[in-house]
Amino acid sequence: MTSAPFDFAPLLPAGLPPAAARWTGRAKYDFTGGNNDPDSLPLDGLIAAAESVMKREGRTLAAYGLNGGPQGYRALREFLAAKLEADAGIACTADDILITSGSLQGLDLVNATLLERGDTVVIEEDCYQGSINRLLRLGVTPVGIPLDREGMRVDALAAALDDLRRRGVRPKYIYTIPTVQNPTGTILPVARRREMLRLSAEHGVPIFEDDCYCDLIWSGSRPPAIYAMSERGGVIHIGSFSKSIAPALRVGYVVAPWNVMSRMLPLKTDAGSGALEQMVLAEYCAASFSRHVPMLRKGLRAKLVTLMEALKEHFGDAAEFDDPKGGIFLWVKLPDGVDTLKLYPAALAAGVVINPGPEWSVNQARARSRVRLCFASLSHEEIHHGIAALAGVCRRELGAP
Amino acid sequence: MTSAPFDFAPLLPAGLPPAAARWTGRAKYDFTGGNNDPDSLPLDGLIAAAESVMKREGRTLAAYGLNGGPQGYRALREFLAAKLEADAGIACTADDILITSGSLQGLDLVNATLLERGDTVVIEEDCYQGSINRLLRLGVTPVGIPLDREGMRVDALAAALDDLRRRGVRPKYIYTIPTVQNPTGTILPVARRREMLRLSAEHGVPIFEDDCYCDLIWSGSRPPAIYAMSERGGVIHIGSFSKSIAPALRVGYVVAPWNVMSRMLPLKTDAGSGALEQMVLAEYCAASFSRHVPMLRKGLRAKLVTLMEALKEHFGDAAEFDDPKGGIFLWVKLPDGVDTLKLYPAALAAGVVINPGPEWSVNQARARSRVRLCFASLSHEEIHHGIAALAGVCRRELGAP
Repeated sequence: MTSAPFDFAPLLPAGLPPAAARWTGRAKYDFTGGNNDPDSLPLDGLIAAAESVMKREGRTLAAYGLNGGPQGYRALREFLAAKLEADAGIACTADDILITSGSLQGLDLVNATLLERGDTVVIEEDCYQGSINRLLRLGVTPVGIPLDREGMRVDALAAALDDLRRRGVRPKYIYTIPTVQNPTGTILPVARRREMLRLSAEHGVPIFEDDCYCDLIWSGSRPPAIYAMSERGGVIHIGSFSKSIAPALRVGYVVAPWNVMSRMLPLKTDAGSGALEQMVLAEYCAASFSRHVPMLRKGLRAKLVTLMEALKEHFGDAAEFDDPKGGIFLWVKLPDGVDTLKLYPAALAAGVVINPGPEWSVNQARARSRVRLCFASLSHEEIHHGIAALAGVCRRELGAP
Repeated sequence: MTSAPFDFAPLLPAGLPPAAARWTGRAKYDFTGGNNDPDSLPLDGLIAAAESVMKREGRTLAAYGLNGGPQGYRALREFLAAKLEADAGIACTADDILITSGSLQGLDLVNATLLERGDTVVIEEDCYQGSINRLLRLGVTPVGIPLDREGMRVDALAAALDDLRRRGVRPKYIYTIPTVQNPTGTILPVARRREMLRLSAEHGVPIFEDDCYCDLIWSGSRPPAIYAMSERGGVIHIGSFSKSIAPALRVGYVVAPWNVMSRMLPLKTDAGSGALEQMVLAEYCAASFSRHVPMLRKGLRAKLVTLMEALKEHFGDAAEFDDPKGGIFLWVKLPDGVDTLKLYPAALAAGVVINPGPEWSVNQARARSRVRLCFASLSHEEIHHGIAALAGVCRRELGAP
């Protein structure tokens, strides 16, 4: 450049996030992110599926949305309708399903359909960071409901809804991850689901059910979805193939009654989600999903056991956790004095990346000594070495364990 | 449902678009949408690419972003850097490129980085509907600059920028589709590109260059991108594989200086664009892009000739148009009395879908008698029959041709 570079700074609106740093690669021991077990990826099946579906109907890739309308590849929606009925008890058809670019786009679409600046929503106190961050960026207030070993405490939910009503606030939705909650790994029992639906009806507040992790339950059986238990249609349900097949395939879905689905569709202005990924998933899943997932679960469970053993070995009593019923993460309580926001940079310097609790909670104080550890993408050996390194950092920086 | 269905209506924010209707399939003769020629889709090449890239590195699909950071699959960015240099004269590296879910996500990201409600931007008067609609939804005022046979009139651009300056308005960008403009099909000459850059520097207004159609020029040669001609970095460049390979693969890209790219990246909160589509495209394009595109162009040019012949045959002098230098659409002027917004429903009833001019222009009055006709996805026979049907509707409804 021959003169001063063009300065974009005066043109940027207020409130943009800080500038990104250049990406420099993943850390040696990365306990963050919803990455999956590469060894469990059904690669041969996906390759065969790609070949067969493209040979059969690949020329439809020349049309936006495969000539199939705005809700996504029909064969994938039909697979989902059957799966949702068999696994989650949801009676729906392909017409009730919208395929999205990951369930994150589902979050964005539901939010765009229902929320505006100044709104309030009710969420689980410890909650997926991506959901919390989206609400804060939209200027929406998340009211956190405490969890116990059975997920969201519905007594606390009732109290919070009463309190909001007294203050004249009608929340836009109750957001819940009821089936392997992120980050606590809890599963909401049927009775609580029923009570949540009762409260939803009483207060006129819909339920936004995020079922991203529902396939990863060790026992293989799950309670019916809240969507399935609703008799009045006041539930929006989202899910994903990121955890069951592969996160880099950006394919999720929204199940919703038409009275809200029809308002959501005009907001999906992306000319369709990636069609090849939808085609390959539909072809693979129709034949092999039910065989693949139990193998995946077995591998994940083994890694969780390794992680819990490593924590016991290197942290002893200083790391408290419940053995979760499924998922790809462990929510760990360190001693009260530990500030995981301070632990983060020290661990990073030692090649270990963690999710500090406060980034996964709207109760910053309570979450300060907590940490989320994802275990799916590391090998058993890396889990052991990574936890040993993390314990070393803790000892050096914080005097414990 | 045993009781009244849950009513979402009281929860919806003001200003949502109207509810979608159920999708009922494409019309018989669909002259809308950026769909491509299915016969020109390089299906065998894509199938082979899918197999080879997945066999070699498919296990990386188990990690978000293929372990490659937030800017997208590196091999695709490297292909693009080489292509952009060879074709458009852009000197950049893979680090200057962000892969997006179609160039529409590129539009959204640039808009989110630069625009806020109340802002003004400068655009071509006749312009891509998706760009106009995005601006209107964001509450941004588009100031339209007239076009002639060589694209945006830079004398009118200079006058508009002067006028805005007098009124104390600094537009956030000049949006242009300089290389096969949508819908006019014009190509902005080098001298006008240079003058646009001079005006951009004089007024401190960056240029937002949308080069989606640049591969589809009949002659095979194109002027350098405005991005390439800038010496100060005040240009953001976007492009797509939708028109050159397949629209259902949702893969586009943004090329931008780091001082604005670094502000854009944190707004891409989708956990990456579809990785399989990026991998397949990179594998296919590195080997075959330069062989594929000339064949595609040849087929498109032949369909354009068919469309122009059909218009001459069925409309005679009542349809005026220039023979465009590339692209997949023709911008047609019907007699002054014709209101294409009224023609639309009548044509639809006869199985013909068109883009009425006012939806592709910020000059509603001037565009009223214009229509955009896309020709890539119809067969030669369908083009003939569709235009004959459209002429029949015109004659019946409007007394012309």
